[in-house]
Amino acid sequence: MAPVPPWVKKLRPAEPLGSQLLDAERAKSSIPVDKLTLFLYGQEFIDIKAKILKILQAEPLFDKSQNYFQGRVERWEKSLARAKRLRQLAVEHDWSLEDHNVAVDLIAEPIPYMLHGTMFLLTLFSQCSDEQGAKYFMRAMDYKIIGCYAQTELGHGSNVKGLETTATWNSDDKTFTIHSPTLTASKWWIGTLGRTANHAVVMAQLIVNGKNHGPHPFIVKIRDMKTHQPLENIHVGDVGPKIGYNTMDNGFLLFNNHKVPHEAMLAKFSSVDPETNQYVPPKSAAQVYGTMTWVRSTIVWQSGGYLARGVTIAVRYCAVRRQFKDEEAPDSQKGETQVLDYSMVAYRLLPLLAACYALHFTGKIMMDMYQQKQGLLTDSTSKQEQEFAIAELADLHATSCGLKSLASTTTADGLETSRRACGGHGYSSFSGIGDVSTNYLPNVTWEGDNYMLTQQVARYLIKTARSVMDGAPITNDTTKIFSYYQSRAEIGAAFDVLGSDTDLVAAFAWRSAYLSFDAMRQRDEAKKPWNDLLVDFYRLSKAHSQYFIVKNFYDTLVTEDPENALDDDTKGIMYLLFRLYALHTLESEANEFFTSSALTVHQITLCRATVMRLLKEIRPHAVTLVDAWDFPDFQLDSSLGRKDGDVYSDMFYRASELNPLNDLTADPYPDSPVIVKSRL
Amino acid sequence: MAPVPPWVKKLRPAEPLGSQLLDAERAKSSIPVDKLTLFLYGQEFIDIKAKILKILQAEPLFDKSQNYFQGRVERWEKSLARAKRLRQLAVEHDWSLEDHNVAVDLIAEPIPYMLHGTMFLLTLFSQCSDEQGAKYFMRAMDYKIIGCYAQTELGHGSNVKGLETTATWNSDDKTFTIHSPTLTASKWWIGTLGRTANHAVVMAQLIVNGKNHGPHPFIVKIRDMKTHQPLENIHVGDVGPKIGYNTMDNGFLLFNNHKVPHEAMLAKFSSVDPETNQYVPPKSAAQVYGTMTWVRSTIVWQSGGYLARGVTIAVRYCAVRRQFKDEEAPDSQKGETQVLDYSMVAYRLLPLLAACYALHFTGKIMMDMYQQKQGLLTDSTSKQEQEFAIAELADLHATSCGLKSLASTTTADGLETSRRACGGHGYSSFSGIGDVSTNYLPNVTWEGDNYMLTQQVARYLIKTARSVMDGAPITNDTTKIFSYYQSRAEIGAAFDVLGSDTDLVAAFAWRSAYLSFDAMRQRDEAKKPWNDLLVDFYRLSKAHSQYFIVKNFYDTLVTEDPENALDDDTKGIMYLLFRLYALHTLESEANEFFTSSALTVHQITLCRATVMRLLKEIRPHAVTLVDAWDFPDFQLDSSLGRKDGDVYSDMFYRASELNPLNDLTADPYPDSPVIVKSRL
Repeated sequence: MAPVPPWVKKLRPAEPLGSQLLDAERAKSSIPVDKLTLFLYGQEFIDIKAKILKILQAEPLFDKSQNYFQGRVERWEKSLARAKRLRQLAVEHDWSLEDHNVAVDLIAEPIPYMLHGTMFLLTLFSQCSDEQGAKYFMRAMDYKIIGCYAQTELGHGSNVKGLETTATWNSDDKTFTIHSPTLTASKWWIGTLGRTANHAVVMAQLIVNGKNHGPHPFIVKIRDMKTHQPLENIHVGDVGPKIGYNTMDNGFLLFNNHKVPHEAMLAKFSSVDPETNQYVPPKSAAQVYGTMTWVRSTIVWQSGGYLARGVTIAVRYCAVRRQFKDEEAPDSQKGETQVLDYSMVAYRLLPLLAACYALHFTGKIMMDMYQQKQGLLTDSTSKQEQEFAIAELADLHATSCGLKSLASTTTADGLETSRRACGGHGYSSFSGIGDVSTNYLPNVTWEGDNYMLTQQVARYLIKTARSVMDGAPITNDTTKIFSYYQSRAEIGAAFDVLGSDTDLVAAFAWRSAYLSFDAMRQRDEAKKPWNDLLVDFYRLSKAHSQYFIVKNFYDTLVTEDPENALDDDTKGIMYLLFRLYALHTLESEANEFFTSSALTVHQITLCRATVMRLLKEIRPHAVTLVDAWDFPDFQLDSSLGRKDGDVYSDMFYRASELNPLNDLTADPYPDSPVIVKSRL
Repeated sequence: MAPVPPWVKKLRPAEPLGSQLLDAERAKSSIPVDKLTLFLYGQEFIDIKAKILKILQAEPLFDKSQNYFQGRVERWEKSLARAKRLRQLAVEHDWSLEDHNVAVDLIAEPIPYMLHGTMFLLTLFSQCSDEQGAKYFMRAMDYKIIGCYAQTELGHGSNVKGLETTATWNSDDKTFTIHSPTLTASKWWIGTLGRTANHAVVMAQLIVNGKNHGPHPFIVKIRDMKTHQPLENIHVGDVGPKIGYNTMDNGFLLFNNHKVPHEAMLAKFSSVDPETNQYVPPKSAAQVYGTMTWVRSTIVWQSGGYLARGVTIAVRYCAVRRQFKDEEAPDSQKGETQVLDYSMVAYRLLPLLAACYALHFTGKIMMDMYQQKQGLLTDSTSKQEQEFAIAELADLHATSCGLKSLASTTTADGLETSRRACGGHGYSSFSGIGDVSTNYLPNVTWEGDNYMLTQQVARYLIKTARSVMDGAPITNDTTKIFSYYQSRAEIGAAFDVLGSDTDLVAAFAWRSAYLSFDAMRQRDEAKKPWNDLLVDFYRLSKAHSQYFIVKNFYDTLVTEDPENALDDDTKGIMYLLFRLYALHTLESEANEFFTSSALTVHQITLCRATVMRLLKEIRPHAVTLVDAWDFPDFQLDSSLGRKDGDVYSDMFYRASELNPLNDLTADPYPDSPVIVKSRL
């Protein structure tokens, strides 16, 4: 396209400018943003981010200006190049794992090395025998071999037991034959496998002497280390474009009776004895439990930050965007109204802002609890201590399932709500929310589908309700709230949810206990089939998880942290966010609070009014409350969410000067060639 | 990539095959699919679709196999070529407007000519003087000039009065100067403008003798008719990539004191007299009202069909996909369970299936009512008749605003729900839902943002409530249900929603009336500011629209259509869908039904159980109920939604044989070039 003419270069957006509007927003809030950032992240993380950001911004390869314009093939190539450069930088600067994770977070795209750095290394670390560790793990750590973790198949996702790939022990030559008996046995969705990896940990049904011992891990070389071509009898490639995540080469993989040596089976826990040709089963399965809980806790922990990206963009843009005049607004508000001042916009965005904080605090507590309860198990010296630790891990496991489901659904849906709150411009790629949102979406499906997972929560809660009914002692928070509920079976309860924060938390506990005992009765007394109750189980899991989040938000505020203390003003605003999250949730789920007799109809009606009042109280702090999340412009890559508010100039610059479509000149007539000139 | 090895070619999916499962589904339902299709569309439409589909499938240009792989520039170029070919085919086969619309629907992508064919032609048709008609409209009909409709600006979307572009009358040389005073005055989002159009209808503030007469339309040549380059003092281009709609070149447009002749102002309704240099205002504004209602009714009418695309794909795939075994299922169900048999999946998909029908029926009724009520206005001979017709159009206008909001939100959200119900594979582009969904998303924002619009509904309903309270006569359905509510103010009401379908409809009417009178009191008695009530207004609009949809669904079933009659069995299943839609909605909005005293808590609890029972009753017909929508595979372009159920082979074929990323061979090591070999 022709260069931008000088008269266009001179144009400025209409006043008031976005920068003026955001300055005014920041001036009117009392919150010391740096202190709140410190409260959220701690100093160490803040320092790491500053250090890494400086390094990345100095590297031309991490310039993002063409990201939104590139097609899949170009984007993937660029992302692999970035992954390589990241690895070089990690070596050069001696980065810790956290340094590296922060860098990936700032780049804000899934890099093709990702599954090598996570699941492949983790599996080798935890499942290799000592000899295997020396041979594979150390070389993988050095990126001499690049791997992935191949479990899911084209026909089998969640149900690992149903995998079709087989690994059959050959006693004659002491090898395993890895085989894909059908097309649906093809490994599918495997990150890093499509074009990048030359090794894979393959989960396959282990068959020894005709007997199936279930899925076991095997390390298999799949591509030549020099030519990078697939080995014979292996068919491997990329599964194609996706709604998001297109910088990653998720792959497929098929085997045609492919032989691997005895050492291919990862042998830390179970193995095949090559002498006796017998399967040697694992001694305990407890640690697998732990890994799943850890992965889900991580999803919970990250959900707040991902949602905050979208909310940051939307809140800033809705403070810059002005549309219509509120005819009843005071005369001091000249011209059009900032969109964020409309109660309908505040009602959509500010509860999400509160949810960002709520999820972040619960995520931190989950990660701490995981460490603590794993520690209990590791440190247990008696059988009794061990049993207690395992029971605690079971409780945490159930909690992590429910929270993973609720947190990732909240974030996925909340990102789309944030995008829509940006109006028409939210549809532009330059909004920046689209990419965050589409890259985030797999979280509602992977590591346990968000609906399926809730069955595990219900199973645990029903079991706990039974044991409490049978008089089991109070050992943790779940048994505590269930016992309380049980003790009030003939008395009922009254919760002053608008007058007392502890009563507000208690009302959520009551609802969770009510639904748990109700589910128990549906099973034990009404003898309802499991499948008929899945919708009830979903509701129960959501109720229990909402209780946990509300409780953790409250606990975070009442617990003083002497290192990162908040001033009283800011603490007060945090309490407003806590109440907004709790009461907005309560209002949305009013039906359950009512049927569980936790509240009166009048209280629910008053909740609505209180929510509207909280929105007004929080509104002046909206911009500083998103600023506290401290996302650099480099990370958000958003015109609408720019920290300086210069939204329109940035939109225009990207469209007018970076957009390759404008290099084409089209002949528009029906009987003509499409393109008459192209600078490409 | 290496060609697919022979051993891979031989692989088949595990049994039972998708085709076997779908055959069984179709065998167990009594619904005569063709009859139901006829009921939905009528014979004429069915014939047109068959005719057009045959033509398109014979044209290599409409082969879709690379659609999901191509980047923005390639896809846009391909789409412009398709638009041109469509125009050639239209001339060749003498297509009607409906033929052409069906073709665009089957191609299933927004083509770059779209805004030429719709808003540009429509505006010229309705706003040209006779001389302008001869000069512009006829040439535009022949595609000698290609145009677009440039209203929205970078800084102004919904608020048309706030547009910044000016058209200033120059009395000395009898011209207008079109000018963009700021960067935010840039036209933005204008379909067909980015690279294609050489003319634009530009909405600009008309300034005559220093006085601003508000936005008026001007036809402006923007690109040279031969070189296709922008004219001097015009800066125009594409606004960049979007979440979807990337085959369209939405554009921006800036003017630097660009002079156009007197005839540029579209002069059917208002003009500037070149002799006197005076503005000549329009005589009436009634027809603008009509266009907006028509556009919104069209969105309502199309929403059911768009949602049905996603639901068709999800229902078919969930009948083919099997995952885990329901341990409590009867022994006759061998192996893993079809996902659609899980109550949680049915609970997500079948109410959406009911919503497809509900929205479709309401859309048809809206289009009919629009014709009928426009007819009333056209045929009115007395002032009284005209006033009645205008009042009826005002009622329809309010209804269309509320329904546009509810219908497009239901469809946008329902498409994402359908996508997620497909599990991991829903994330693949090959699912086909992603593209439908992202292309559909603008509907929640354009033609009135779905939240903003609801204010118009509330304003109308509050006004109507006031007039009914003041004793206004019953003139239409809204005044009828308000009068009934008013008459029961001191008696209350009881609705047998589970025992009587008419009571079910009446309960929805009651809730709508309750919320309308409540909103009226908030304004008139409590004197609440308008802005404080926006959330209430949104709820009111949703309640009123849900009533309208429930009522129309019921009316459609009780009204016999002698031409397209349904057999009793099928009619019975339609009633199940009606009840499912109504009761599922009632359950989701239980809080409002309860606070409006329309129902008891016990009834709401029973509703839940009834919904679960309806799901079981509808389940055997799920596949035939989506089949009836009759989307050809060509249109859906979906692996998961294939009519023959051959899901996995299709996924594999696209990934393994069509995917250009697999033409690259990557060197995976960090200290190496990225690509070692490429066939591209």
